[in-house]
Amino acid sequence: MALAGTADSSKGKNTKCKLLTKDSMEKTVRLPVKLWLSALEVGREDPRRLIHALKVGVALTLVSFLYLLEPLFEGVGRNAMWAVMTVVVVLEFTAGATLCKGVNRGIGTLCAASLAFVIEFMADKSGRACRAVFIGVSVFLVGFLATYLRFVPYIKRNYDYGVVIFLLTFNLITVSSYRVQNVLQLTRDRLTTIAIGCGCGICLFMSILVLPKWSGEDLHNSTVYKLEMLARSIEACVNEYFRDQTQDDGKSSKDQIYKGCRAVLDSKSSDESLALFGSWEPRHSRHCYSFPGQQYVKLGAVLRLFGYTAVALHGCLESEIQTPLSVRLLFRDPCTRVAGEVCKVFDELARSIRNRRHCSPNVLSDHLHQALQDLNSAIKSQPRLFLGSKKARPAANELAEDWRPQKNTSSGVALPSAKSDITSLQEWRGKRVESTERKVLRPTLSRIAITSLEFSEALPFAAFASLLVEMVARLELVIEAVEELGRAANFKEFSQADEIAIEMGWDDKKPCVNGKDFQSHVVHQAAE
Amino acid sequence: MALAGTADSSKGKNTKCKLLTKDSMEKTVRLPVKLWLSALEVGREDPRRLIHALKVGVALTLVSFLYLLEPLFEGVGRNAMWAVMTVVVVLEFTAGATLCKGVNRGIGTLCAASLAFVIEFMADKSGRACRAVFIGVSVFLVGFLATYLRFVPYIKRNYDYGVVIFLLTFNLITVSSYRVQNVLQLTRDRLTTIAIGCGCGICLFMSILVLPKWSGEDLHNSTVYKLEMLARSIEACVNEYFRDQTQDDGKSSKDQIYKGCRAVLDSKSSDESLALFGSWEPRHSRHCYSFPGQQYVKLGAVLRLFGYTAVALHGCLESEIQTPLSVRLLFRDPCTRVAGEVCKVFDELARSIRNRRHCSPNVLSDHLHQALQDLNSAIKSQPRLFLGSKKARPAANELAEDWRPQKNTSSGVALPSAKSDITSLQEWRGKRVESTERKVLRPTLSRIAITSLEFSEALPFAAFASLLVEMVARLELVIEAVEELGRAANFKEFSQADEIAIEMGWDDKKPCVNGKDFQSHVVHQAAE
Repeated sequence: MALAGTADSSKGKNTKCKLLTKDSMEKTVRLPVKLWLSALEVGREDPRRLIHALKVGVALTLVSFLYLLEPLFEGVGRNAMWAVMTVVVVLEFTAGATLCKGVNRGIGTLCAASLAFVIEFMADKSGRACRAVFIGVSVFLVGFLATYLRFVPYIKRNYDYGVVIFLLTFNLITVSSYRVQNVLQLTRDRLTTIAIGCGCGICLFMSILVLPKWSGEDLHNSTVYKLEMLARSIEACVNEYFRDQTQDDGKSSKDQIYKGCRAVLDSKSSDESLALFGSWEPRHSRHCYSFPGQQYVKLGAVLRLFGYTAVALHGCLESEIQTPLSVRLLFRDPCTRVAGEVCKVFDELARSIRNRRHCSPNVLSDHLHQALQDLNSAIKSQPRLFLGSKKARPAANELAEDWRPQKNTSSGVALPSAKSDITSLQEWRGKRVESTERKVLRPTLSRIAITSLEFSEALPFAAFASLLVEMVARLELVIEAVEELGRAANFKEFSQADEIAIEMGWDDKKPCVNGKDFQSHVVHQAAE
Repeated sequence: MALAGTADSSKGKNTKCKLLTKDSMEKTVRLPVKLWLSALEVGREDPRRLIHALKVGVALTLVSFLYLLEPLFEGVGRNAMWAVMTVVVVLEFTAGATLCKGVNRGIGTLCAASLAFVIEFMADKSGRACRAVFIGVSVFLVGFLATYLRFVPYIKRNYDYGVVIFLLTFNLITVSSYRVQNVLQLTRDRLTTIAIGCGCGICLFMSILVLPKWSGEDLHNSTVYKLEMLARSIEACVNEYFRDQTQDDGKSSKDQIYKGCRAVLDSKSSDESLALFGSWEPRHSRHCYSFPGQQYVKLGAVLRLFGYTAVALHGCLESEIQTPLSVRLLFRDPCTRVAGEVCKVFDELARSIRNRRHCSPNVLSDHLHQALQDLNSAIKSQPRLFLGSKKARPAANELAEDWRPQKNTSSGVALPSAKSDITSLQEWRGKRVESTERKVLRPTLSRIAITSLEFSEALPFAAFASLLVEMVARLELVIEAVEELGRAANFKEFSQADEIAIEMGWDDKKPCVNGKDFQSHVVHQAAE
């Protein structure tokens, strides 16, 4: 019996091993397929990546001509190596990044060469052994200081690459000068290299002129995109809040909300680097004197602050404690209208940035004011809801009856009006408490959940409404940031023609509220 | 008269010019001072930076011995250049990052050398002109493909540096092979370089062994720090909400809140890179089989979700629409207690991660349950507040009278109970509407602000309370993520001794609520 057991287990192990091998083999086979698919996806997402790769290929081929063509090779000799290296390391995706790296490399190399020359000059007077010590000490000191300097935020942000190149070049020149008698020759060699770097800079510039990609432009577009995404996600959030969630899963709309918020919240580092590279780009003089990268970053920060409120609004959807749908529906119209007006403001702001003009002076319209007032009176007209839940329940239940007849029969918990939410909560909880030992660990959990549900039913809705009003209050900050950007970037003045286009094309976005989108699309298109 | 005017203006211009020159000169003088100060600051913030800089200096000096010492130079010759380059480029702040870069560099170089050899082998058979074309085409193709590959997210995340090195080495070998007859010699040279790279890898490893800094450890500590900062900022937020804001500015406490939230919200990219580098580190086998970087990242994401609620709570402080302090004070005790209990949970979670043990099974204590229940009954006991503002105002005013006697006389707006907030709002607004033309642009603004203030007074407080309850509901997600991390990282089991330490040391953090911190500090210290 025992033997059979062992045999069984060893057989089981064998099968497991085989399965594992098969599994890992399948994985190995699948890896190139996956890579290929995601490579296709990468190109489809942003075709400029394909163009950039082509540009790098062309630049490398051009630089290799320094070696391959006889007359060019005679000019630069083996130093062409450095040109190849420069192209590989400096040529970046956007024009600003390339310029930033190129200039950093140039400055770093020059500084290093000068310092190395000075040190060599000082070391030259001493004896050979003494000289070795001198070089060793200077290598240590410069290495220490340069590395430490890289931690200073200002240097790290702007000149990190330059310091690395400085350190590299300095060490190469200083150390190798010990063996080479004529340091001037070596420095000249190195300077030839710089010359080649410049020659290759021409090649880089070529690639900046051929189908360039501007960081500043990217930052501009991403700002417009973020404004639009915020508008869409607020709209979706409010629509979702007043939707009967038992009907369908609403996954796509939740995805939309999530995507919109993420686009804004995760934008900090990319905004900052785009602004940095954008400040290196010369092109913006067409629109203004210098690229207002900091204004874009500031607007991004304000939008992130706004985004936190949007996420909190989204949190109201995901919350385990919910005001019953019947109660929520009482406030559907004013809430939707307030949200719609907020979205309109965002759309106008996005449009103004996209067209590089100041935003409409009437961007905060009377409609918004009216919608807020209506929300106010709607809340005032239902004082009973904001009483404690025990008293309010009968009133809410009258309305709730037709919304959840099945639910009422299926669950026997003591809180009748919050049942639909309890059931969903239980389902959700059931899904998650799979490992049995953790159920035992936390006996207080379910009690807490039920306590929460005994709160005044209107409390979660009050939070929702308050966040919505808070959003309106914060709109002004966003408008201010956009106006500041407009002034810094010399946007053109808002004209009457724009206004007409807005009046007509106001509601051309998909989920519109007042729904008067007659012939708007055409006018809007013409205005853009 | 006109002449005098011109003279005046030119004089003005001159003075302006002088001022500008003086200004820019002062700036130039101040720059090194600023740099020096921030360099000192950088070292004080994290002394390991100083150590890292020293390590780089030592490594560079060691590598320069390859040149300076006769016997070593005979072994490697001029190829020592590449060792210097490797040290400068590969030696990073954390051990994981250094290993990641070093391995990437090694793999990239090997792949490039192999491919270059194959291509050379194929090109060798053709004529000279044909060979040039062949090399040019292969340089283009490899350059294009490698650059494109760098956009694939999987490659970008893990092997970006390796691909750059591959491209660099491949081009150097292939292109220069055109002029060098014996490619094998060249490849061998290159391979010597790799050997030196490895030799220098020993030097790197030396520096990894000397006072190393582990990414995994950093990620671990930053997770603990984030948990604690969240706790502190929630505590500060609730305290601030119930503080009389006319007494002092409360700037330091607001800073605390902001700092705590920022620490959590901005952690995404640093978490991810630390997790990536952490996965390269071998050291973690002491605690578990593989470094659970992904679990840390997941916990970070859950904390960020929690952080959004915390920011929304903070938004309640900053909001222009405020429930009067008198009303807020009615709920001070239960709210503070709920927040205190949430903080206790966070502190226990932080402690469990710090000590690498599972968290207490009673982490969600009965106190939390009790505090929630009290908040519930407090809200239920004040039904009149949740009525429309017009009806609730007299009740609120009775209590409010002693809180703002001066304010009542200084402003004559129609909403008596919300006055203190209106005044502050007006001040705030006055500060911002400096440019006069913008005042004209948006006549609706002030109307909107006042409309908002007509809302039920309790609405903002309801939002605050709801967010607090929402936080409690989300606690479970955090606990779950911490438990998952504990299982993945093989944390030790929770023992009775820990429990005693917790029971006694529960309230050892500064702003404690129940205040029973007798002799707790000693016990807590002992437990750690």
